[in-house]
Amino acid sequence: MAKHKNEPRPKALPPKGFRDYFSLDIYARSKMLNKISDVYHLYGFEKFESSAVETVEALGKFLPDVDRPNDGVFAWKEEDDWLALRYDLTAPLARVYAQYRNNLPSPYRRFSMGPVWRNEKPGPGRFRQFYQCDADTVGSSNMAADAEICTMLADCMESVGIERGDYIVRINNRKVLNGIMEQAGIFDPDNPSNFLHERGIVLRAIDKFDRLGFDGVEKLLGAGREDDSGDFTAGAGLTDGQIEIVLAFMRAIGTTSESTLVNLLELVKGSLTGQVGVQELEKISNLVTGQGYGMDQILLDPSVVRGLGYYTGPVYEAELKFKIKDEKGRLRQFGSVAGGGRYDDLVKRFTGQEVPAAGISIGVDRLLAALRMKKKSDNEIIGPVVVTVMDKGRMVDYQTMATELRNAGIRAEVYLGNPRNFGNQLKYADSRASPIAIIEGGDEKAAGVVQIKDLILGATLAKKATLEEWKSRPSQIECARDDLVMQVRKMLAEQARED
Amino acid sequence: MAKHKNEPRPKALPPKGFRDYFSLDIYARSKMLNKISDVYHLYGFEKFESSAVETVEALGKFLPDVDRPNDGVFAWKEEDDWLALRYDLTAPLARVYAQYRNNLPSPYRRFSMGPVWRNEKPGPGRFRQFYQCDADTVGSSNMAADAEICTMLADCMESVGIERGDYIVRINNRKVLNGIMEQAGIFDPDNPSNFLHERGIVLRAIDKFDRLGFDGVEKLLGAGREDDSGDFTAGAGLTDGQIEIVLAFMRAIGTTSESTLVNLLELVKGSLTGQVGVQELEKISNLVTGQGYGMDQILLDPSVVRGLGYYTGPVYEAELKFKIKDEKGRLRQFGSVAGGGRYDDLVKRFTGQEVPAAGISIGVDRLLAALRMKKKSDNEIIGPVVVTVMDKGRMVDYQTMATELRNAGIRAEVYLGNPRNFGNQLKYADSRASPIAIIEGGDEKAAGVVQIKDLILGATLAKKATLEEWKSRPSQIECARDDLVMQVRKMLAEQARED
Repeated sequence: MAKHKNEPRPKALPPKGFRDYFSLDIYARSKMLNKISDVYHLYGFEKFESSAVETVEALGKFLPDVDRPNDGVFAWKEEDDWLALRYDLTAPLARVYAQYRNNLPSPYRRFSMGPVWRNEKPGPGRFRQFYQCDADTVGSSNMAADAEICTMLADCMESVGIERGDYIVRINNRKVLNGIMEQAGIFDPDNPSNFLHERGIVLRAIDKFDRLGFDGVEKLLGAGREDDSGDFTAGAGLTDGQIEIVLAFMRAIGTTSESTLVNLLELVKGSLTGQVGVQELEKISNLVTGQGYGMDQILLDPSVVRGLGYYTGPVYEAELKFKIKDEKGRLRQFGSVAGGGRYDDLVKRFTGQEVPAAGISIGVDRLLAALRMKKKSDNEIIGPVVVTVMDKGRMVDYQTMATELRNAGIRAEVYLGNPRNFGNQLKYADSRASPIAIIEGGDEKAAGVVQIKDLILGATLAKKATLEEWKSRPSQIECARDDLVMQVRKMLAEQARED
Repeated sequence: MAKHKNEPRPKALPPKGFRDYFSLDIYARSKMLNKISDVYHLYGFEKFESSAVETVEALGKFLPDVDRPNDGVFAWKEEDDWLALRYDLTAPLARVYAQYRNNLPSPYRRFSMGPVWRNEKPGPGRFRQFYQCDADTVGSSNMAADAEICTMLADCMESVGIERGDYIVRINNRKVLNGIMEQAGIFDPDNPSNFLHERGIVLRAIDKFDRLGFDGVEKLLGAGREDDSGDFTAGAGLTDGQIEIVLAFMRAIGTTSESTLVNLLELVKGSLTGQVGVQELEKISNLVTGQGYGMDQILLDPSVVRGLGYYTGPVYEAELKFKIKDEKGRLRQFGSVAGGGRYDDLVKRFTGQEVPAAGISIGVDRLLAALRMKKKSDNEIIGPVVVTVMDKGRMVDYQTMATELRNAGIRAEVYLGNPRNFGNQLKYADSRASPIAIIEGGDEKAAGVVQIKDLILGATLAKKATLEEWKSRPSQIECARDDLVMQVRKMLAEQARED
C-alpha cells in the first residue's frame, strides 16, 4: 500500500444509503427469519440461494440502453456483459428455473432469503441494501398454489409474534381490476395498450384508498386533487358514470367472502376477463375458508393493487393493522410488510414457453421494525463473564480461567486492554453487558481463592437496595480457585431466576 | 416490459464464476457456520454485519487510477464516488472500527460471516463470490489476543468435526522472517525498501516448502528452478551462505516449542526485529501451552508466510492434514482452510492513530468441502409428506389434510401439478425425497378412510425384500380419515428407527 504522505485520509463511512448491523439487530433478524423458514419448510418449500450478481440481460426489466445504466440497479460493464446486483429475489428465480427446469421437481416450491440492492435515492429509513424473504411456487397454474401462499403468509405473521387481529392478508385479482376497467370503458381486451395512461392513474388512486378515502379517490378519478400543501395531482378525467363503477368496486367488500364475490361478479358481468378473475378469487377463497382461516386473517379486498408490472392474476399483501405515529405525529396504520402475486410470464422470457408461477416477498426490515414496536423482538444477549487482569505477567492464569468456564459452556473472556487502571476494566465489563467479573490479585493467588463479582446484582443494589439487603446479599463473593466454575454457574442461575 | 418480437431470449445462466446453492448445500453451510458462531460467541466475540458495498476509498488497496478499475474488485462509479463490492471482511472492519470507535467496547472482539467478491478469472472450483467467516480483536496489542485467536481456531476445527490430528494451527511471525532476512543480508531495518525483490522471492519459496521440500526451496533461493513441465522460475540469486541461513530457519522446528524458540533465537540473534518476533512467539506459545493445547494442535512453524501485505507481526493458519487426490491423481494434503495475523496499521489509514488488531478468516467453502470429504457434513433433509390429488374438485379436502399434518409439526404439501397421471404424482414425491404419500380417491372418501403409502419402506422392499417380508410388511396401509395424523406420525417414527 504505497501512500503519499499528504494524501487525505479516507472517510470512515459506508456509502450513502448503506448501513451496518450490530449483534442485537442480527440476532433479532436471524430469530425472525428462522421462524419464517420453519413455516416455509413445513409447507414443503426448499431453501435456495443464488449469488448477488446476475447479468443485466437475465435480470430483465432494467435493460441498459445507455452507456451506463443507472435506473434502479447497481450495474457495471465487464468485457461484453453488463453485470448487476439483484434488485429482488424473483428475477433470479426465473433465471434459475429456466436453467435447471429439467432437474427440479415440478411444481418447484422454493424459498430464499437475503439482501437485495436498489440504486435509488436514499432517505430516512430508506436503504439501498435491504433484506427480502421470498417463497414461490413455479410450475403450477392451480389457484391452490395462491391459496397456500396466502395461508402460509398468515401463518408466518402469527409465528413471528403478530397476533390475530393485528395483521390481515388481503387478496385481489388483476383480472378483476381489468374487468372493472372494461366496464368503465377504459380497458379494451382487443387493444390492451389503449387507455394505459388513464388506467395507471386509476390504479394509483385505488392504491391510495387507505390514506385518501372515497372522497380523495373520487377526485383523482375525475378532475384531480389538491392536497393539504396545495400540490395538485392531475386526475384520470373519468365521467361521473365511470367514476361510479370504480367506487362501487371499492365498496364491494361484503360481510362474508361469498357476498363479496357476488358483488364483484355483478360489477364485472359484462367482462369475460373480469369473470375469470372472480372465479379465481372464488377458488382461493373456498380453499382458505375450507381450511379454517377467517376474514380477520385473509380477506378479499378490491383495494389491493401491488405495483409490480409482471403480475397476471391474483395479487396479495400482508398489512399490519396496529397504529403508529408518522413523521408528522399523526396516527396511521403500520401498513404493508409483504406482497406478492401470480406472474405467469417471467420464465417465458428465457424459455419461450409459458411457466405459471406465484409467490410472496416479505420485507424483512419492515417486519422487524414492527416486531420491535410490539416488543416482540428479542433484545437481550447475555454478555460474557469478564476475567480481569491484576498482573500482566500472569495472563496464562487468567486465560486458563476463561478456558475452564468455556469448557463448561459459559461465555467468558479475558480483558485484553491495558490493565493498569482497574476502573477501566469494570467499565469495559459494563460495556460488554457482562453478568460477572472475576478478580484474582496477588493475595488471592497466594491464598488459592478468587473474587466473583455479581455485576447485575451490583447494579440493582446500587440503584435501590436497603442497607439490610446490601448486607444480606453481597454482590461479591470469595471462593476457592477450584470452585470457580461451580460458583459462576450458581451465580448465573440466580441471575436468571431473578430476571 | 416492452420487448421486440425478434429480440433474442436472455441466456438462463449466472455470470461466469458465480453459482447457485440448493437446499442441502445451504443447510450444511448453516450448520457449520452455527457451530463456528457458537465458538466465537463463547469466546466473547460479538456478531457484526456490514453491507456488501463500500466506497473504494474506504476499502483501500485497490484505489482506481484508471477510469474503470478492474484489478481484483467489482467497482462502479456513482457521481463522484467509486463504489465496490467488499473483497474481504477485514477492510470493512477497519472502516467500522474507525467510524464507531467511541461507542465500541475497547478492545472490540467481533465476528462476521458472509459473502465477499473478487473480480478474478474464474476457474474450476474458483468462484468470484464466496463465503468468509472472520473473527478479529481490535484495540489490543497483547499477544494474548493472538493466542486466543489460535486456540479459538483450533476449537472451531474440532467443533465442526475435524478431529485432533487431522488439523494443525501453525504460527509464525513476520518479524522473525524479517530477522532471518536481516541475518542473510537482504533486509536493512534502516532501508526497508531495499532488497524488496529478493525478499519477495524468498517468501514465495518458503511458502512453497510443503510442495517443493528443501531441494526445491534451495533452488529457488539460488539460481532458480525448472519444474517437471520444463518451466523455469528465476531464483533469488542468494549466495550459499545466505541460502544456508534460510534453510536453517526452515529446519528450526524442535521437538518442543521451547526448543523451537531456542533455535529461532539463535538464528536471529543479530537482529533486533527478529528478537522481538521470537519474544512475541514465546508469549503466544506460553499461553496456548499453558491452556493445555498440544503441538499436534497448535505449532510454531517457520514455513508460514501468509500472502496479505498488511500483516505486521504474528501470522497463523489452519491446515488440514489428511490427504486428497489432486487433479492429476497425486495424493496431497488438503491444505489451508483459514489464515490470519496481526495487522496494526489498517485502522490508522482512517484515524491517523495506530490501532493494534489481530484476526482470522475461515474459508467457508473450502472447510465445507473438507467436511463433505470426511463425511462430516449433514446431507439429509427429510422431504415433505405428499398429499396426492385424486379429484381436482376436492382440493379443499387435500389442503385440509396437509394443514392437519402441519399443525402437528409434520412437513406436508399437496401435489399442485396436473393430477391426471397418478404415476407423475408418485414420481414427483420421489423427486421430493418424500417419506410418505397420502391417497384419498372417491371410494376412500365414501368409506371415510385414506391410504398411507410408505415410500421409504416401499423403495427398500422393492430392492431387497423376500416374499415373506413383502407380505408381513405392507408398504401401504389404510386407516380412518380421522386417524390420518396419528398414523403418519407412527410411520415416520418407524422410518426414523430403521434409519
